[in-house]
Amino acid sequence: MNRHVAIIGCGHVGADVAFSLVTQNLVDHLSLFDIKDAKAASEQLELQDMAAHIGSRVHIDHNDEQQLSCADIVIMAVGPSKTETSNRLRELAETSASVATWAPKLQAAGFDGVLINITNPCDVITMSLARRLALPEGRVFGTGTSLDSARMKRVVGKLLDVDPASVDGYVLGEHGESQFVAWSSVRVGGLSFSQWPQAETADCAQMEADIRRGGWDVLSGKGWTSFGIATAAAKLVDAVFSDAHRVYAVSAIDQRFGVHIGQPALIGRCGVIRTIPIPLPAAEAEKYAASATVIATAFQKIC
Amino acid sequence: MNRHVAIIGCGHVGADVAFSLVTQNLVDHLSLFDIKDAKAASEQLELQDMAAHIGSRVHIDHNDEQQLSCADIVIMAVGPSKTETSNRLRELAETSASVATWAPKLQAAGFDGVLINITNPCDVITMSLARRLALPEGRVFGTGTSLDSARMKRVVGKLLDVDPASVDGYVLGEHGESQFVAWSSVRVGGLSFSQWPQAETADCAQMEADIRRGGWDVLSGKGWTSFGIATAAAKLVDAVFSDAHRVYAVSAIDQRFGVHIGQPALIGRCGVIRTIPIPLPAAEAEKYAASATVIATAFQKIC
Amino acid sequence: MNRHVAIIGCGHVGADVAFSLVTQNLVDHLSLFDIKDAKAASEQLELQDMAAHIGSRVHIDHNDEQQLSCADIVIMAVGPSKTETSNRLRELAETSASVATWAPKLQAAGFDGVLINITNPCDVITMSLARRLALPEGRVFGTGTSLDSARMKRVVGKLLDVDPASVDGYVLGEHGESQFVAWSSVRVGGLSFSQWPQAETADCAQMEADIRRGGWDVLSGKGWTSFGIATAAAKLVDAVFSDAHRVYAVSAIDQRFGVHIGQPALIGRCGVIRTIPIPLPAAEAEKYAASATVIATAFQKIC
Amino acid sequence: MNRHVAIIGCGHVGADVAFSLVTQNLVDHLSLFDIKDAKAASEQLELQDMAAHIGSRVHIDHNDEQQLSCADIVIMAVGPSKTETSNRLRELAETSASVATWAPKLQAAGFDGVLINITNPCDVITMSLARRLALPEGRVFGTGTSLDSARMKRVVGKLLDVDPASVDGYVLGEHGESQFVAWSSVRVGGLSFSQWPQAETADCAQMEADIRRGGWDVLSGKGWTSFGIATAAAKLVDAVFSDAHRVYAVSAIDQRFGVHIGQPALIGRCGVIRTIPIPLPAAEAEKYAASATVIATAFQKIC
Repeated sequence: MNRHVAIIGCGHVGADVAFSLVTQNLVDHLSLFDIKDAKAASEQLELQDMAAHIGSRVHIDHNDEQQLSCADIVIMAVGPSKTETSNRLRELAETSASVATWAPKLQAAGFDGVLINITNPCDVITMSLARRLALPEGRVFGTGTSLDSARMKRVVGKLLDVDPASVDGYVLGEHGESQFVAWSSVRVGGLSFSQWPQAETADCAQMEADIRRGGWDVLSGKGWTSFGIATAAAKLVDAVFSDAHRVYAVSAIDQRFGVHIGQPALIGRCGVIRTIPIPLPAAEAEKYAASATVIATAFQKIC
Repeated sequence: MNRHVAIIGCGHVGADVAFSLVTQNLVDHLSLFDIKDAKAASEQLELQDMAAHIGSRVHIDHNDEQQLSCADIVIMAVGPSKTETSNRLRELAETSASVATWAPKLQAAGFDGVLINITNPCDVITMSLARRLALPEGRVFGTGTSLDSARMKRVVGKLLDVDPASVDGYVLGEHGESQFVAWSSVRVGGLSFSQWPQAETADCAQMEADIRRGGWDVLSGKGWTSFGIATAAAKLVDAVFSDAHRVYAVSAIDQRFGVHIGQPALIGRCGVIRTIPIPLPAAEAEKYAASATVIATAFQKIC
Repeated sequence: MNRHVAIIGCGHVGADVAFSLVTQNLVDHLSLFDIKDAKAASEQLELQDMAAHIGSRVHIDHNDEQQLSCADIVIMAVGPSKTETSNRLRELAETSASVATWAPKLQAAGFDGVLINITNPCDVITMSLARRLALPEGRVFGTGTSLDSARMKRVVGKLLDVDPASVDGYVLGEHGESQFVAWSSVRVGGLSFSQWPQAETADCAQMEADIRRGGWDVLSGKGWTSFGIATAAAKLVDAVFSDAHRVYAVSAIDQRFGVHIGQPALIGRCGVIRTIPIPLPAAEAEKYAASATVIATAFQKIC
Repeated sequence: MNRHVAIIGCGHVGADVAFSLVTQNLVDHLSLFDIKDAKAASEQLELQDMAAHIGSRVHIDHNDEQQLSCADIVIMAVGPSKTETSNRLRELAETSASVATWAPKLQAAGFDGVLINITNPCDVITMSLARRLALPEGRVFGTGTSLDSARMKRVVGKLLDVDPASVDGYVLGEHGESQFVAWSSVRVGGLSFSQWPQAETADCAQMEADIRRGGWDVLSGKGWTSFGIATAAAKLVDAVFSDAHRVYAVSAIDQRFGVHIGQPALIGRCGVIRTIPIPLPAAEAEKYAASATVIATAFQKIC
């Protein structure tokens, strides 16, 4: 009856996902996992030190693999030993090896829930996990371009002096360098982006670079990124628990290309209920196909 | 009309206070400050990347000292260059120098709000800031033993198998090694702690050590502490904005000893409205006096 | 520094707006007004009985007209003595007389904030209040078709099996019988409504009737409507306090027609920052103009 | 995996419990029941009209008895046809007959969750439901004096100028005229009530009358009470879903007297985990016993 989430990997991202879920009362039972037991243990203590100051109780444990058998949602958030600063694909060899060790543990535990992957390169790792776990389609998906889409909303909102929450639209493709803003999908307050007067003089290429480089910009000052992705992941967790059928840009399978790739999808109790095939103008369709190729090529390297 | 918080210091603590405030919709305008401009800028970006996924808007800027003139609350969260691992008092020389640079800036800006100090050693730094800023009494206070009290509730709650939120009572004295659990104040569900059957066989000395060492235990695994203190600080911010007259253990002036020290106080719009002089049995009163002496001695070093 | 809302009229709607604001921690100080003093007093007691079980403090008073001088937001929610069951315009004579008694009180108090009008017929009453109060343009606006737009999202979401929160678009015009669904504005997950397969066989006329009749359907079973409008109003209050620049369909002045009418607008600290002139196909533009005429005609009756 | 609550009775109380749960994101699936189908249907519509403006999805249905088989929590909130204005016991004959019709339906559906009873007279009806349903002890409990305790906190908080959330202690006994404030349990900020200077001159008898009459005072102005009880019930629902082991004053079995009666208890996944036998001074113990007798006597009438 309670909402049980397991987080694998207690680095900055995993820990801040936990912090978000606890702060927002989106979880009743949280199981933390990290190869460094002291790290997982200390995050458990920190989160339990919040208990006197939050509205609802959360039960927390760490590195107890039996919990994987009853978790409703697993969040894969293992990171590389050293964060890449220019291309997430360079982390592939290391992170794919790390997540590969978890798939048999999940299977041994009989995990039968929804897996949300954050580990980068997100699309490739998601695809790899989907194949290894062999759960029903849609049950394994990645945070994909959910964060990039949020960054697009930040950049567009700033240009138009509008709350980013009132900006709709998507960044599509790889959660990586080959991603692109689907400008055709961007709408604000009932107007398409191009209908706003400010759009005429906007430097869309620069905006797109700001969006794509959003993560690196944060990295350069802070050393890692976590608040944005943790907040996006919390929304996805809530969408699964509430069977929301709400639309988010996530990394889901696109059968046309045979890859997991960032695209809008309905998220509910079983993960991705269905993707939403938005029509793209030719130029954007080409970028999408090119991004799918980047993902497919990277995936070949770890097969 | 809007709730404006300035956070000075964007290390782990300052950044996670910001994250808490934004996640919980406890702030409308957030001004971040850090001596590393890139650090403050990257935290701003991270927090703005949350905008599309949270319920309410937050306006954020960084290193804009003009904002200090209109901030309602300033949170002092500058940290040492290297976190101490056994005694917070060792950070004093460095952190007192750091916060000292901010007092004239706050005065120059005409800051007229409430300052909540987190910087360690918390009591000494709070006392120092209170003297430097010369705001009305109560307007400068420290997080003090609010976090330690939360840790006590975690430890007691675990022993009794009760939600820490249902445990009342205080850790008093220095937010440091001389703190102590005021067991006489600890009550659970209408019973004093000693009335619970489990209390008879409990190793209170060990529990108290676990509480006092809570921060170091977290440090050893994680490298820093932030979730617990950020969550406690968020409650204090809310208490100020809502003029709550709610009771928290904070570092407030105790005129009997002439020091700022952890004790229960009513928190409201003007900070500490009044402290609550709880009667202590002799043994606890001695510990309290001894802790006050530790704080006073440390304060002498930076006068 | 605190968020101060005054609610005028403690019928079902005003009381449930108060309940929403307190439950969601969107207000720090709440001033209730009702011509029946016992009614306002009992709502105050009820809301104060929540205090032990909510996260944040709210200060509440009732029928204290001095509070109008410092309120940030006034919500006008006076109702008719008997709720109309088929046409909100029939309530005009009674409600316009009621709100008319409040305008001089607000002026006498020097009210200088934002007024959000809920009283029906919403557009006409909003226009009347805007003229009487003579505050800067945008500072007086009505909830307009915000609730109708939410109903449209419910109906469309049900058809498509999608979370209403993922449906965008507007009901425009009068918050009354002449309103219409701007189908051209309705989008779900990046697709326009007409691009969804289910749209082909949908009975849009029936859906539109369900939306328009949403209020009456609720009325027939419950005797009044309040949860939907209270929740919409709470979002508008939050948008003002946080200076959100978020888009909502509200009743704002349309200079082309000289009436307040339901249309998308950016809401911020000063109320309506600007309306968003979405391009409508000819058929919808005609409906909009016709609805504006209905409002203008009704307004003539109370001039 | 989702949180499923069924609410039986959609009068003011049941509807406002639903409103609270949806507003606070404490439920994922809500099943409404009312003997007037149009009433339940209209509440469903109202709650669904909130969907576009709340953070999380809630699935809602009405009068679908199959839902009782999978509900985690049932809230019994049937009311009398006409609200009593001086003694809740006078509602007994009518309400006990009403709830009696639901017990076989719950049993036929194989309901195996937690039942929280609000229907008055709360203790007697709770006892009756506990016997009829024959679920494991603790799975059926009543809101009891949770609301009265909240009223005590309001009254004491007002006297001391302290946030009611910082007042601890209980009203014990019947949720009715024989209830009493256990002044020995009342503590504020680490001091017992009697240690506060204001307590010396306080008119405790008047305060107790204000507390006991809190519901009637609200009734006289508003015609019913709902916000306070709805908010208390929402906390209890959260405590069950999160297996909180949090302490609330609820109506639970007291084996010494053989009645369900208001007393502190730990609330968790299985309802009442255990009651907390707080030691009462003789005068309060007598009042408690007398109140138990009132409940027992009333219960005899419906056996």
